[in-house]
Amino acid sequence: MGKGEKKVAIVGAGQCKFGRRMDASYRELAYEATHKAFEDSGLTPKDVQYSVIGVAGAEFFNGQLAPAAAAADYCGLNPQGSMRVEAACATGSAAIRVAYGTILSGLADIIMVLGFEKMNEVPTARAVEALGRGGDAQWEFNWWGTTFPAFYALMATRHMHDFGTTEEQLAKVAVKSHKYGALNPYAHMQKAITLEEAMKSRVIASPLKLYDCSLITDGAAAVIMASASIAKKICDTPVWITGLGCASEGEYFAAKPSYVGLNSAVEAGRQAFKMAKIELKDVNVADVHDCFTIAEIMALEDLGFVKKGDGGKFVEEGQTYVGGKIPTNVDGGLKAKGHPIGATGVSMAAEITKQLRGEADEGRQVSKAEYGLTHNVGATGQYAYVHIYTR
Amino acid sequence: MGKGEKKVAIVGAGQCKFGRRMDASYRELAYEATHKAFEDSGLTPKDVQYSVIGVAGAEFFNGQLAPAAAAADYCGLNPQGSMRVEAACATGSAAIRVAYGTILSGLADIIMVLGFEKMNEVPTARAVEALGRGGDAQWEFNWWGTTFPAFYALMATRHMHDFGTTEEQLAKVAVKSHKYGALNPYAHMQKAITLEEAMKSRVIASPLKLYDCSLITDGAAAVIMASASIAKKICDTPVWITGLGCASEGEYFAAKPSYVGLNSAVEAGRQAFKMAKIELKDVNVADVHDCFTIAEIMALEDLGFVKKGDGGKFVEEGQTYVGGKIPTNVDGGLKAKGHPIGATGVSMAAEITKQLRGEADEGRQVSKAEYGLTHNVGATGQYAYVHIYTR
Repeated sequence: MGKGEKKVAIVGAGQCKFGRRMDASYRELAYEATHKAFEDSGLTPKDVQYSVIGVAGAEFFNGQLAPAAAAADYCGLNPQGSMRVEAACATGSAAIRVAYGTILSGLADIIMVLGFEKMNEVPTARAVEALGRGGDAQWEFNWWGTTFPAFYALMATRHMHDFGTTEEQLAKVAVKSHKYGALNPYAHMQKAITLEEAMKSRVIASPLKLYDCSLITDGAAAVIMASASIAKKICDTPVWITGLGCASEGEYFAAKPSYVGLNSAVEAGRQAFKMAKIELKDVNVADVHDCFTIAEIMALEDLGFVKKGDGGKFVEEGQTYVGGKIPTNVDGGLKAKGHPIGATGVSMAAEITKQLRGEADEGRQVSKAEYGLTHNVGATGQYAYVHIYTR
Repeated sequence: MGKGEKKVAIVGAGQCKFGRRMDASYRELAYEATHKAFEDSGLTPKDVQYSVIGVAGAEFFNGQLAPAAAAADYCGLNPQGSMRVEAACATGSAAIRVAYGTILSGLADIIMVLGFEKMNEVPTARAVEALGRGGDAQWEFNWWGTTFPAFYALMATRHMHDFGTTEEQLAKVAVKSHKYGALNPYAHMQKAITLEEAMKSRVIASPLKLYDCSLITDGAAAVIMASASIAKKICDTPVWITGLGCASEGEYFAAKPSYVGLNSAVEAGRQAFKMAKIELKDVNVADVHDCFTIAEIMALEDLGFVKKGDGGKFVEEGQTYVGGKIPTNVDGGLKAKGHPIGATGVSMAAEITKQLRGEADEGRQVSKAEYGLTHNVGATGQYAYVHIYTR
């Protein structure tokens, strides 16, 4: 049994409906999410002593430098202090880590962690370009035009070559995620798909097809974090963060030591489990960074839920469903819930909070979940953050 | 005498030459700064357990999303974890605050805080536009075209109207800052100017003239921070951070409650002094956010060094020179040292570190400085960070 120290908790969590949200600005999405977290916690903006705001690309998507300030003002979080945190697609998890440190340092007892991204204000091609600029924009993006579907297609190709992973196995990740997305009212894609539909979908970057790719999604998520003494006072069901791990790897894709996994994710996982003092088998539910179906398979392997190379078979056996060995992305994941990049890590934390409280939707609640894990990756491993949560 | 707790220290500090650095990429500037901090501390990249990297606008200036990852890799800071922090022009101070919290939480004992900005990769007009987008980019920038010289010109106009502050008094801020910039080998502008030159310089946004404005500067700065026990082991001259304050105010310039000062800076200062348990008179040297000459005058008033409205006279009396009541920006300030926005707050911390160690350049060292202060503002007060340092 685990015994990581219960020093910082999530006392409120929420998110807006993810999707192509042409009805709302990024500020309005942020407001929806913070409003949900306030409702959930019973707190008001006045209770918040500091805000840590994750947003990854508002400069490209919304033409706004310093986007966190605009959102903080709109959400009523002023005149308390705030800042913006960014770690590419792991932005939300980096923000949670900052809040954890700030609380334990005594600088603030109650912190709003907000993550948002309004990506559909630009055409899809421009959004894909902006994301591509999250890799190396001096050499790899400008010279080769490499965007993220291409990076992950190369990894999928190598994984298939080394381990015999199949396109069907990738598609089965998508089928599982869409099944759960359809049960999650906040998900972008609320439509179950068949294996045949996934396999027949058009090629995006071979071997990855449409249903292997996460979406260009607008969304926001928020969690309110508090110190132990405060959390116990204001909340009957605090969800504790007992393990945090964080590591990085090189900027250049062409220079990676491995294309079948992320060393940074392996290391971040190791740190988080060590700090939480639990073992893999203690984890009941996981949200991992499935920006592409191959990424979910690599994440399960990197974290150790299955041996490197056996992830495809693990998926095929149904071990990532509710009732399987490790229910994974049963909120739909980046694949079906959507991937508004600054919001994703915070949305993962919000989902695990609901799961550990037993408040997830019917059909996707993991029964008696005691430990949950989030695994959030920026770019192609330049950032890897793993957090472990418990009741 | 002060007695704020000495729990986190700066154990190494450095910066690159600020200027129009067409010889170097942002990664190379970052490397120069981290290299200086490593040299100064006797540490190597392997000693660093985490990096907090401040950069405000690399998306606009360098076409790079997730710029911190690229810099961390180039500076040899991988595979340890890292993240990017942004708070507009207060980015560097926000990064220091994150490092302070992370160290006290126990997540890391030694942290590299790096700030950089390579602004001259785009034409000056584009850089001014990008900065303008750090105000509200939906209404105020797009509708009115307001950029920062205009915002601060409006504040200067009001300050003149309410208190009789003169253009000569503004120019005297510039004369003082250029005098010290000429003595700082790392400053962008190494040229003393006369009052006449300042007064005759061309109008940028009336009443602000060329010499009232900070520069579009390329640069990077780095400080290495450590927990108390580690700091004492590796360093004979730790510089302690004993006070931190942080506050915000509204996004809309048109809705500000005051145009002669920043409420957020007043509040951030109050918090920092309370935490450091010192009084104003204890402070021997200050680096304040003089993005425009009027901003230095407002900062001196907001912090309480002089009564609101009397800042112009205070400057005229020479109280901000070495030997005056509060030597202010005797490194040249944003005005003459330069303002590479992500680097500025870190460069302030590096300067105060050198001052408290007695290692500043001849002619600008404040004798026997025991307490130093930094005041760093993002946008028009959306972010205000005040830190207090001591030997």
